[in-house]
Amino acid sequence: MPSYTAPSKDMQYVLHDVLNIAASDIPGYGDLDRDFTAAILDEAGKIATEVLSPLNPVGDTVGCKMENGVVYTPPGFKDAFAQMQAGGWPGIDMPEEFGGQGLPYVMGTAVGEYFSSANQAFTMYQGLTHGAASTILAHGTADQKATYLPKMVACDWTGTMNLTEPHCGTDLGLMRTRAEPQADGSYKVTGQKIFISAGEHDMAENIVHLVLAKIPGGPEGIKGVSLFIVPKVLVNDDGSLGARNAVSCGKIEEKMGIHGNATCVMNYDGATGYLLGEEHKGMRAMFTMMNEARLGVGMQGLAQAEIAFQNALAYAKDRLQGRDVTGVKNPDGPADPLIVHPDIRRNLMEQKSFAEGARAFLLWGATLIDAAHRKGDADADGLISLMTPVIKGFLTDKGFDMTVQAQQIYGGHGYIEEWGMSQFARDARIAMIYEGANGVQALDLVGRKLAQDGGKHVMAFFDLVKAFCKENAETEGMAEFIEPLKRASKDLQTAAMYFMAEGMKNPNAALAGSYDFMHLFGHVCLGLMWAKMARASNAALAAGTDDPVFHQTKLVTARFYMTRQLPMTATHLARIQAGAGAVMALEAANF
Amino acid sequence: MPSYTAPSKDMQYVLHDVLNIAASDIPGYGDLDRDFTAAILDEAGKIATEVLSPLNPVGDTVGCKMENGVVYTPPGFKDAFAQMQAGGWPGIDMPEEFGGQGLPYVMGTAVGEYFSSANQAFTMYQGLTHGAASTILAHGTADQKATYLPKMVACDWTGTMNLTEPHCGTDLGLMRTRAEPQADGSYKVTGQKIFISAGEHDMAENIVHLVLAKIPGGPEGIKGVSLFIVPKVLVNDDGSLGARNAVSCGKIEEKMGIHGNATCVMNYDGATGYLLGEEHKGMRAMFTMMNEARLGVGMQGLAQAEIAFQNALAYAKDRLQGRDVTGVKNPDGPADPLIVHPDIRRNLMEQKSFAEGARAFLLWGATLIDAAHRKGDADADGLISLMTPVIKGFLTDKGFDMTVQAQQIYGGHGYIEEWGMSQFARDARIAMIYEGANGVQALDLVGRKLAQDGGKHVMAFFDLVKAFCKENAETEGMAEFIEPLKRASKDLQTAAMYFMAEGMKNPNAALAGSYDFMHLFGHVCLGLMWAKMARASNAALAAGTDDPVFHQTKLVTARFYMTRQLPMTATHLARIQAGAGAVMALEAANF
Repeated sequence: MPSYTAPSKDMQYVLHDVLNIAASDIPGYGDLDRDFTAAILDEAGKIATEVLSPLNPVGDTVGCKMENGVVYTPPGFKDAFAQMQAGGWPGIDMPEEFGGQGLPYVMGTAVGEYFSSANQAFTMYQGLTHGAASTILAHGTADQKATYLPKMVACDWTGTMNLTEPHCGTDLGLMRTRAEPQADGSYKVTGQKIFISAGEHDMAENIVHLVLAKIPGGPEGIKGVSLFIVPKVLVNDDGSLGARNAVSCGKIEEKMGIHGNATCVMNYDGATGYLLGEEHKGMRAMFTMMNEARLGVGMQGLAQAEIAFQNALAYAKDRLQGRDVTGVKNPDGPADPLIVHPDIRRNLMEQKSFAEGARAFLLWGATLIDAAHRKGDADADGLISLMTPVIKGFLTDKGFDMTVQAQQIYGGHGYIEEWGMSQFARDARIAMIYEGANGVQALDLVGRKLAQDGGKHVMAFFDLVKAFCKENAETEGMAEFIEPLKRASKDLQTAAMYFMAEGMKNPNAALAGSYDFMHLFGHVCLGLMWAKMARASNAALAAGTDDPVFHQTKLVTARFYMTRQLPMTATHLARIQAGAGAVMALEAANF
Repeated sequence: MPSYTAPSKDMQYVLHDVLNIAASDIPGYGDLDRDFTAAILDEAGKIATEVLSPLNPVGDTVGCKMENGVVYTPPGFKDAFAQMQAGGWPGIDMPEEFGGQGLPYVMGTAVGEYFSSANQAFTMYQGLTHGAASTILAHGTADQKATYLPKMVACDWTGTMNLTEPHCGTDLGLMRTRAEPQADGSYKVTGQKIFISAGEHDMAENIVHLVLAKIPGGPEGIKGVSLFIVPKVLVNDDGSLGARNAVSCGKIEEKMGIHGNATCVMNYDGATGYLLGEEHKGMRAMFTMMNEARLGVGMQGLAQAEIAFQNALAYAKDRLQGRDVTGVKNPDGPADPLIVHPDIRRNLMEQKSFAEGARAFLLWGATLIDAAHRKGDADADGLISLMTPVIKGFLTDKGFDMTVQAQQIYGGHGYIEEWGMSQFARDARIAMIYEGANGVQALDLVGRKLAQDGGKHVMAFFDLVKAFCKENAETEGMAEFIEPLKRASKDLQTAAMYFMAEGMKNPNAALAGSYDFMHLFGHVCLGLMWAKMARASNAALAAGTDDPVFHQTKLVTARFYMTRQLPMTATHLARIQAGAGAVMALEAANF
């Protein structure tokens, strides 16, 4: 069975050595000193390792079952959920006013990685609740907040998001679910939603569904979509639970992975719903949830890559097979461990440099969200809005690839379910699809985010990279990291300029290169992170750190990323510059 | 449920327009005219579509079951197996002397792709039998051939290969299975083998296990390994079946995919075995089987990519979602089909250009095998020996990637088992692992094959590319294909020279780049195939073909590969030239 150890040393390094959060002027960051964050990470790591991780294969093997309309989560999930609630983890970064811990989002992100690594399917129940609660927080009335948030922050009630219907996922303008206004101001919601994660289960006394639907007579298409709160059990005026609402789970889907999470077909048969936010502005409200969810899904890519890497590394050190070609390393054993072999190391270094780079990228992104929300920093808001599709698309694509590479280290044992490596790949696979398939992320990035506010945010990104390069160009030991970053960033700029020049004439020229652009952008972001880590570790070494090996290891890993991963930007650029010609040339019938 | 249509038009194109097989002087090729191969492909396509394909999801869902030591294949497998036998498919390219059809290997490869696309798990039962029979054909005594081959060619008896043990897969020198010589010339084989595909099942009256074991007192390690025939049921002198041998299936593994194939733990408890080939030369004999198996596994990569592509394409044409940004394409519908979107096309074109390029590559490889075996062409033998790890490693890596991309076209539906796209990815995943994990293929390529016979074969490959480029440099319409091929081939040569120069000083410099080299080589091979197809289609168009659309489509797809896939060689080269430094720098403890 695979094991999991929370990477708290690395997390502390990113939070403090690289991002220096305690020195930030973002409200709430002043409290986040090393000892404080260490205590939180330590506790979160314990529950991840001891409670959630052992349940991960159970969730995969047993899955969720539906009997007579009741959905049962896998054995042990209920107890674990109660333990998470008791520890206050679901509300760690929710307002104290509603029972949360009131910590910054960056801390929620840090511990979220642990929980997601240890048990992605389980952690989704609280993750979706968090997203639904955030939406009510942003768009709900005072009454709605008072009714739902204390229960949801505590995860006594969980939440869901209901967008997809059988005939539409990405194109929500085709939606058929209807909400008929009632005399008392409520609505009757009727329709079918599919792929509803955590749609029905036995771990909470109520489930608060956020449902997109059309109010008859409203505008056509996506402009006539509104968002509704549809509780599984209606809530009385005194806050107690009342009658069962007309919403039910039609079936649980059989999926490739995340078997521990119930993916439900939800039937709304004139269910009572309450408008959340304004009429016909449902998409805007839903995006509050979706943007947060996209960062959370990007994190899942990292999280599965991390646990897969940990286990692949342990196997590579343990499994004896073949001899080091440059000389026997384990003379007393029948063979050397796998890790002596260069191609095994190449594979492991790809995993390591991805996981650590992605962690820095995500936490940096989380600080931007805190700056936007806690400090009202519009530039930070613009930058994270630009990078959200990159975090979602790039980290989940690469995260999945890394779980597949980790599986490969095990040879045949990687394909056998007993060893658990297959589950990491199967679970990670969904993250490339849900919350907007990665092709849609690329479209969002190139079709919308690049040009947002006159291209201001992408220019800010380039300036930020430039400023970093300039600041550190002369710093001893930094040239080897700055040069490749500059080249990669230049590739990204060239691609953006190509889009501007060609996209004016033909939007397909930009869209045909959107996926490559998203990956190109991702590599530049990870390159920037590795350059920042190299600077932090060079500084620590210069200052006489008492842990030189840790920082030297960072430098080696940074070097690996720069020389072995970042060159990929050139190929992405070449593909982009090949244009739309061969992509668009064929008639559909001739494919 | 997914569907499958045999790509016979494309297969005919490669066999005749590109490879011009009927004009070859390889014995047996003269008969392979268009009508003859069309008739075979047509029949094979029918059984693949009508019999094997509908059983593919059944195999996945129901899997194999063991009860009281008896292994039951999924419902319908037995009947389908009997139909395959009745059609003579298992022996299509086996000698007529033993009941085969005596056709060249290239025809076995062509129909093998169909069967493997339609049902990989099912097709493995006869594929492994073919490999085992080929080994007996190459290394068996006249008696052994007479006893086993007629039954195996007909698949009345199936075959297996037994290499892996719990503690060793790649490093077979660590093997513990023992074969004790007996007075009658037989051996008593004792030990445990794992991951034995088709190790036990209910579709044949006997199973002929080929087992690697050590004869006590022989040389240490890999040099003391011998190969044995260990039938499940002993065969009497008159050829009738006798007593049950002391070999049994200990359990069936739970796997990520290929559930329809029984992957068995096999226990040999003093089982009667017969030496196949010479004492202590078991590895050499086993390599007969393994080289053939590696090509077959490379084919599985293509085969799963092909069926996944067919279904993704159908879905992209059918599913309505969003509108073409350059103008509505389906004004009467609520939305345009997915295929109007540039990134969907980018994805589909990657799949299409891979599948068609890989098909040409594999069939070209098969003609080299025929040239080697039927004509004694040593150069062809050297070339296919060089390219075997590329076919296995590159085609299975890319084949798996393509199934994942095909799954992505379906959005959420791709993750739901009901649609079948998950199975293609889960089944394809094994091909990267078995018959030598792809890292081992890369090691074989760089560590052994490159330098084989003084580097003669890789030089022959470069000469072949050069000659093609030179011949076609001035041909109208060919420059756009020749130039990228030249550049890619130059990257490959530069990488090979880097290995020669650096590898002398430090073998790790070459080995750290071995995986990138395998992929670089694969891209050059597919680039060569696309250039050849471009030439064939340009010629057909110039000659006034009555199917211009087919050939114009080939040119577009060739252009796509050249401009959008082949640029990857530059990144592989950059990674290789980064050397072993950052790959090897860390102590194992510091990862």
